[in-house]
Amino acid sequence: MTAERDILRRRFAFPAGANVELGVGDDAAIVRAPGRLAVCADAMVCGRHFFPDADPFTLGKKALAVNLSDLAAMGARPLWALAVLAAEKRHGEKWMGRLADGMQSAADAFGFSIVGGDLTASATTAIAATLIGEAEGGFLSRGGARAGDDLWLSGEAGEAALGLALLRGGDFVVSQKARARAMQRMNDPAPRVELGRRLVGAASATLDVSDGLMRAARDLALASKIKLRLDADSLPPAPALSELPRETQIMLALEGGDDYELLFCAPPERRGAIQDAGSRSEVRVSRIGEAAAEDADGGVEVFRNGRRMTESELPSGYEHDFGE
Amino acid sequence: MTAERDILRRRFAFPAGANVELGVGDDAAIVRAPGRLAVCADAMVCGRHFFPDADPFTLGKKALAVNLSDLAAMGARPLWALAVLAAEKRHGEKWMGRLADGMQSAADAFGFSIVGGDLTASATTAIAATLIGEAEGGFLSRGGARAGDDLWLSGEAGEAALGLALLRGGDFVVSQKARARAMQRMNDPAPRVELGRRLVGAASATLDVSDGLMRAARDLALASKIKLRLDADSLPPAPALSELPRETQIMLALEGGDDYELLFCAPPERRGAIQDAGSRSEVRVSRIGEAAAEDADGGVEVFRNGRRMTESELPSGYEHDFGE
Repeated sequence: MTAERDILRRRFAFPAGANVELGVGDDAAIVRAPGRLAVCADAMVCGRHFFPDADPFTLGKKALAVNLSDLAAMGARPLWALAVLAAEKRHGEKWMGRLADGMQSAADAFGFSIVGGDLTASATTAIAATLIGEAEGGFLSRGGARAGDDLWLSGEAGEAALGLALLRGGDFVVSQKARARAMQRMNDPAPRVELGRRLVGAASATLDVSDGLMRAARDLALASKIKLRLDADSLPPAPALSELPRETQIMLALEGGDDYELLFCAPPERRGAIQDAGSRSEVRVSRIGEAAAEDADGGVEVFRNGRRMTESELPSGYEHDFGE
Repeated sequence: MTAERDILRRRFAFPAGANVELGVGDDAAIVRAPGRLAVCADAMVCGRHFFPDADPFTLGKKALAVNLSDLAAMGARPLWALAVLAAEKRHGEKWMGRLADGMQSAADAFGFSIVGGDLTASATTAIAATLIGEAEGGFLSRGGARAGDDLWLSGEAGEAALGLALLRGGDFVVSQKARARAMQRMNDPAPRVELGRRLVGAASATLDVSDGLMRAARDLALASKIKLRLDADSLPPAPALSELPRETQIMLALEGGDDYELLFCAPPERRGAIQDAGSRSEVRVSRIGEAAAEDADGGVEVFRNGRRMTESELPSGYEHDFGE
């Protein structure tokens, strides 16, 4: 049996980074902060967001990546993270150490430091992380889109959803190459932090696509009080989906979760700036629709081959349901 | 079945407070920050830190109180919190609403705002909170005690441990009044935020007593590289323990967890300032020992009736153990 503090000392001794006066090991960390911060927290639960036998290194990266994606959607630069781990018995010290290594690799890749957190035993493994970022030079939100704006998507949507479907034994038949890419997209998402930073001042509204494109579009439309028109024919082809029928590709993109791409609006006169932000960030950006009109109730219309898809043809978006 | 976003909107629509540009509801919150921050995160897991039938309002308060206690130990003033809830089925929307109300009551009482978080279903209910505080005017840490310093304790230790023992059916016989106080101390701790703030500049080292006085003393001794001498006869009498034999009181104080008092050191010439900080915060402060000598290995000696207690007489301090 190994005690909590020993594991913390051996496995979670994250190095202090820039602007950290006091890192892990005290009751709290002390950091030197810029004047405006973006802060967010997200959790991943075993059996729901990941499988018990998920690779812990990749899982540690992903636990921070989902939060980095939220910061990306605000146009913020990540500074510090706090990580809370509740671990069930089968996820022992070595597993935790790999998880911590994965977290640190995300910190190294995105230039922030992990300054604190907590470790406890639990009947269900769960990882919660808080990210704190700098938003001095302005920030993005969901609520700024105007009628006439273009609707944009970074990268491609739907590949992670294929990965999950394959893991669950879904009846998709794809090549090993497509499968590998889908798995990688599901397990090891690339948050669009640099793109988000470059969109500040260019995009009018931004959010990250974590629960499917349809869900994200509905949230953006509601927050911005606009009716969005999404052109399914404009969805960029995704490598992992290329062997599937186009209709299947579109449904995976609209319904699938775990993409961690950015969905955003920008006025048409910013097209050059948006393309430029994409190429400087080395991320494809695609125009996939427009903000059609003001509408206090929000709403999204999806067009396919010139025809508007009916509500019954569209996914409702993945959500956790709670009984009561 | 109720979807996550509906519950968030109905139950977790925390109001934005001071210096919050954008509160709950976007990918991240945007806040205006002072130049130096204290940040910490702590988790509570069902079946380990609380019982499934715990009152959710009190639980929500406590989930933030344990983090406030960490900020108190740094001498920081709470500004913002993020709260992550993973909820099992039996803890449904009404339960969550009461939990959120309890969290907001802590925010109101301590003058901070809850700016974000996450909600997910899980097989095991767990609550993780991050607190961000202001530490502009200096801060406390565990590592600054010097040989010759006094050792101080706020409030009284051991009452929460009695509460837990009673809940577990331990064979303590106490009055209803003592039981009620012990339960209140366990379920509804009072973090010493104001005292912590007043100790900045007066105390040399501080931490919060969350896993028993012995564990806290050992951590302080190790971080400050001193040998601590703790005088058990000086431990302040605790109302809930007054009906128990003095030896039992002392063991509960040394071993028991969940006190959320501050253990701190200060030079003898600061005794007046410390007493003053205590009375202005309306918290009893008691001198319970001293920093006897420098010692790179730390260590704590406990004296009782003039005799040094042996290691086998002393508790090791509560810790979560992990198998592997």
